[in-house]
Amino acid sequence: MPKKIILDCDPGHDDAIAMLLAHGSPEIELLAVTTVMGNQTLEKVTHNALSVARVAGITGVPFAAGAHRPLVREVETAPSIHGESGLDGPVLPDPVLELDSRHAVDLIIDTIMSHEPGTVTLVPTGALTNIAMAARKEPRIVPRVREVVLMGGGVHVGNWSAVAEFNIVIDPEAAHIVFNEKWPLVMVGLDLTHEALATTEVAERIAAVNTVPARFVGELLEFFGETYKREQGFDYPPVHDPCAVAYVIDPTVMKVTKVPLDVELTGALTLGMTVADFRAPAPAECTTHVATDLDHGKFWGLVVDALKRIGDPEQ
Amino acid sequence: MPKKIILDCDPGHDDAIAMLLAHGSPEIELLAVTTVMGNQTLEKVTHNALSVARVAGITGVPFAAGAHRPLVREVETAPSIHGESGLDGPVLPDPVLELDSRHAVDLIIDTIMSHEPGTVTLVPTGALTNIAMAARKEPRIVPRVREVVLMGGGVHVGNWSAVAEFNIVIDPEAAHIVFNEKWPLVMVGLDLTHEALATTEVAERIAAVNTVPARFVGELLEFFGETYKREQGFDYPPVHDPCAVAYVIDPTVMKVTKVPLDVELTGALTLGMTVADFRAPAPAECTTHVATDLDHGKFWGLVVDALKRIGDPEQ
Amino acid sequence: MPKKIILDCDPGHDDAIAMLLAHGSPEIELLAVTTVMGNQTLEKVTHNALSVARVAGITGVPFAAGAHRPLVREVETAPSIHGESGLDGPVLPDPVLELDSRHAVDLIIDTIMSHEPGTVTLVPTGALTNIAMAARKEPRIVPRVREVVLMGGGVHVGNWSAVAEFNIVIDPEAAHIVFNEKWPLVMVGLDLTHEALATTEVAERIAAVNTVPARFVGELLEFFGETYKREQGFDYPPVHDPCAVAYVIDPTVMKVTKVPLDVELTGALTLGMTVADFRAPAPAECTTHVATDLDHGKFWGLVVDALKRIGDPEQ
Amino acid sequence: MPKKIILDCDPGHDDAIAMLLAHGSPEIELLAVTTVMGNQTLEKVTHNALSVARVAGITGVPFAAGAHRPLVREVETAPSIHGESGLDGPVLPDPVLELDSRHAVDLIIDTIMSHEPGTVTLVPTGALTNIAMAARKEPRIVPRVREVVLMGGGVHVGNWSAVAEFNIVIDPEAAHIVFNEKWPLVMVGLDLTHEALATTEVAERIAAVNTVPARFVGELLEFFGETYKREQGFDYPPVHDPCAVAYVIDPTVMKVTKVPLDVELTGALTLGMTVADFRAPAPAECTTHVATDLDHGKFWGLVVDALKRIGDPEQ
Repeated sequence: MPKKIILDCDPGHDDAIAMLLAHGSPEIELLAVTTVMGNQTLEKVTHNALSVARVAGITGVPFAAGAHRPLVREVETAPSIHGESGLDGPVLPDPVLELDSRHAVDLIIDTIMSHEPGTVTLVPTGALTNIAMAARKEPRIVPRVREVVLMGGGVHVGNWSAVAEFNIVIDPEAAHIVFNEKWPLVMVGLDLTHEALATTEVAERIAAVNTVPARFVGELLEFFGETYKREQGFDYPPVHDPCAVAYVIDPTVMKVTKVPLDVELTGALTLGMTVADFRAPAPAECTTHVATDLDHGKFWGLVVDALKRIGDPEQ
Repeated sequence: MPKKIILDCDPGHDDAIAMLLAHGSPEIELLAVTTVMGNQTLEKVTHNALSVARVAGITGVPFAAGAHRPLVREVETAPSIHGESGLDGPVLPDPVLELDSRHAVDLIIDTIMSHEPGTVTLVPTGALTNIAMAARKEPRIVPRVREVVLMGGGVHVGNWSAVAEFNIVIDPEAAHIVFNEKWPLVMVGLDLTHEALATTEVAERIAAVNTVPARFVGELLEFFGETYKREQGFDYPPVHDPCAVAYVIDPTVMKVTKVPLDVELTGALTLGMTVADFRAPAPAECTTHVATDLDHGKFWGLVVDALKRIGDPEQ
Repeated sequence: MPKKIILDCDPGHDDAIAMLLAHGSPEIELLAVTTVMGNQTLEKVTHNALSVARVAGITGVPFAAGAHRPLVREVETAPSIHGESGLDGPVLPDPVLELDSRHAVDLIIDTIMSHEPGTVTLVPTGALTNIAMAARKEPRIVPRVREVVLMGGGVHVGNWSAVAEFNIVIDPEAAHIVFNEKWPLVMVGLDLTHEALATTEVAERIAAVNTVPARFVGELLEFFGETYKREQGFDYPPVHDPCAVAYVIDPTVMKVTKVPLDVELTGALTLGMTVADFRAPAPAECTTHVATDLDHGKFWGLVVDALKRIGDPEQ
Repeated sequence: MPKKIILDCDPGHDDAIAMLLAHGSPEIELLAVTTVMGNQTLEKVTHNALSVARVAGITGVPFAAGAHRPLVREVETAPSIHGESGLDGPVLPDPVLELDSRHAVDLIIDTIMSHEPGTVTLVPTGALTNIAMAARKEPRIVPRVREVVLMGGGVHVGNWSAVAEFNIVIDPEAAHIVFNEKWPLVMVGLDLTHEALATTEVAERIAAVNTVPARFVGELLEFFGETYKREQGFDYPPVHDPCAVAYVIDPTVMKVTKVPLDVELTGALTLGMTVADFRAPAPAECTTHVATDLDHGKFWGLVVDALKRIGDPEQ
């Protein structure tokens, strides 16, 4: 039986690939896509999500827009990485889907409450603002969620500061809320995603699929590769967000370790750091986990297979 | 034309009196009552709000329950001041009103969006969690609100720490959100409310009204007076929350000064302090104000008149 | 018997007047003058201190230079208030005194340890860096000091931020150290010193003394008045530092209240605030006090009398 | 030519071994030993240092006591690791050396200022309080010091909190001072020292030396091994402090990487963390370095050789 997920994202190059991976994988049933400001403004990333839906031929899935800004902090976007549109590189087709009239927070709550307890997995790949607000507005969702598998954070590495990752540091209070709720949580952070490099060989395998969506991914990776090289000195771009989806598809694609995780809210140097305590075995009541050690071949295999299954949509 | 208000509260002895004052004043049109944890748990304060509605004969007004906990921090209630029920002292009648099915956040948003811009005043007398979540979920409410007149904070005085007041310090992040939105905001804080003492003469005037609601208020003040004497050394209890309602009824009941206000989120000694900057005249774009200098006689006159108008409900 | 003091200062216009007041008052025995960066760099304020010594005819008193920067924070000076020299306005005579070879910290320690316990009062009128380092280097000075009477801080008012005063906020860690040692401490802060205005009548009384030092003070006040008007909107300049000396001369010149005081080290809005807890009577073990309610006439009388006694030095 | 060092320590089992290693190595000229509270109170660790001097036959080296408490925080010692004496396990001989009359801060300053610039290496193996105070009291030592090689901190690991190490977190302000001065600094932290395990094979090599000092080290390691097993779950105790001395003796015993390092002063979860920024190559002006990858055999060889050279002192 496929796993039901809600993808909460801010496309974003890697978010777009995460959407395609989810849509093209039979192990996943995509219940809803919700958006949150982050890589770009809410308006832009919501438009991008709908464009990607058209590229991928996603229909019958509700899309809803969520938080236009972090809970407490000011908005901070990442045009240096994702460009002015949030999805620079390919030409984006005009969306055909219409947005759900609900706020993302309500779509998330309604979706969880209308499915059996323990069946819905949340997959946030942006700031955790929507998820945090949903947990606060309707606390009954927390014990009903199967798992939160999020892209964000990093135990030993940062990208937006020395020790903080973008998705967490732009709304650390929301992340603090999500990390401290008692649902099973897997942090697919930079420890893992910096291994998910789109190498030349990966680009070639994707190009060989030779469909509209595959060419779209190729153009995304080309732009993403250039900004990551220029901004962070990477030889190949780390494609973060599909790693979280890949874990839902096949948990053996990475190693996951139970460890207490929390989010720093007041550090001068460490604001937004995801702090792991490895000093002792995690206590029984611990519900947080960190991902490491990606199976690079298997991961990109999932992406390529998903592209093949999607075929040649956008019309 | 009466002023339309939404009362967001956590009854609470002084919240109960604020409800009675709002209900019994022709200058006020009570659009909705929403509740938030604070003086006691959400369940208790919501029950209390409905009980007070029966005491006062409030009908035709939607009541909705809101946040069960602060945004980021753990729940902290005030049984030392308000007792185990949150409204210890009088016998509480069973509620007859039923709760609105909506979350307080949605009732607040719907109410504001369904009235003319500039006509709805928010009167929060508890933690600002509901108001903050409403502003984040639906940012269009901010320019539509006429004014936020809140009980909380204090410029030169604290009660839950040396420099912080209970309503603010139990959810400082929510307060930070509310104080930093660009709506007109009047902080009716301890600077003002520590003047709203229910003296013996006040108690006698209320007793003379001699109705069910007036006796109810008398019993509230007796309990409140005892806890305030024991816990904070007050000779007479400061009756905070109705001061915010009183300002809406008649702004001349106090002095209000425009001054930049913000909420401290990281201080070791000052967490939740409402920081005012009096060093220079407030800049033109400043929207925050602080209340001082209560007209004690006029204020209690408003309360006594409201009780008289309410008459003898609860049946 | 005169009270023995060590004046630890950063002249600075009001520091200079504090020196003159101490030197010209028979109630004071000036044991040492030590300097600390603050109003200007250590080099400049040390030069200024020696120049003022010549203006006032101070001899036989050791002067030593101390901390060139705060303990943890970066150096921050106040040229907008005190000018480029730290003592802009009058022409400064070349110093004739030579500096003691010791570091201020050691001069402070040696002076305290070589006098009878309970006889030496510390009068810091700048950042508390030297005093903090002395207390850490030689903890035995703490119980030997009679009292610390410092200019700095403010309970309900700030000048370098909304709620912090310059001397404290430029080295908050040093202030935290000094406020938390168990010596009697009187904080002569902005609550008090904003009453020590050098009005026109004050300027006239000083002018009437008509000596070299009095004219020097007149020129200091003229410059100080201009910067305080321009920078902080004062009609007359508040002459902070001599207030601390005045308290040692005659404690009846102000009101002093025992209250727990501490220094905020981590606030985003409140860094360096001196937090007083007035919620309950100060506990018996409390050693901190705050000054309020200056006797303006008596205070300026002390200054004028001191100038008269000093006569016409500088040669 | 041997390298001149000042060892600033808080013996402490591993500090004691650091003393022995320094004393028994011809590559090291031990100029002075200074003490600082930490593993135990200043009084105890100073006594221990003098006892170890007798065990090792150290003479002609000045020993001075320093800070009895951290700059800002309250004293915190580590009896769970080092016992009530700070050096539990072996019987400690009565000291024969007398303490230098100077404060450690002055001994450090005098020693550096009386040697050629660039010749004195500071080797702190405890809290950085003395070093910080010396740098503040006499800033001219900073450009004169050859290098600071300290045991403390950790980039990816903590022991006193999830991400902070004992020596740093007990006086984070002092550490902040030392890490931010512009001297060459090598942080020999937990990343490295958790590799310096005293395995059974190590214990046997030391036992085979069969001298008074070697048996003393054997007894130290036995006690240290027990507490580390009980408190932190280590199979063999990590012997931190001699690693810093070993680096001075032979830098090839570990790998050292230039990277910006700073100390977190305000984090709720990260106070005292040593934050490294590995996101980009260290800029040219960076003076901080982190040690990793111990050559375990070479390291313990240095210790064993030093014990052999020391011979059989204590009489």
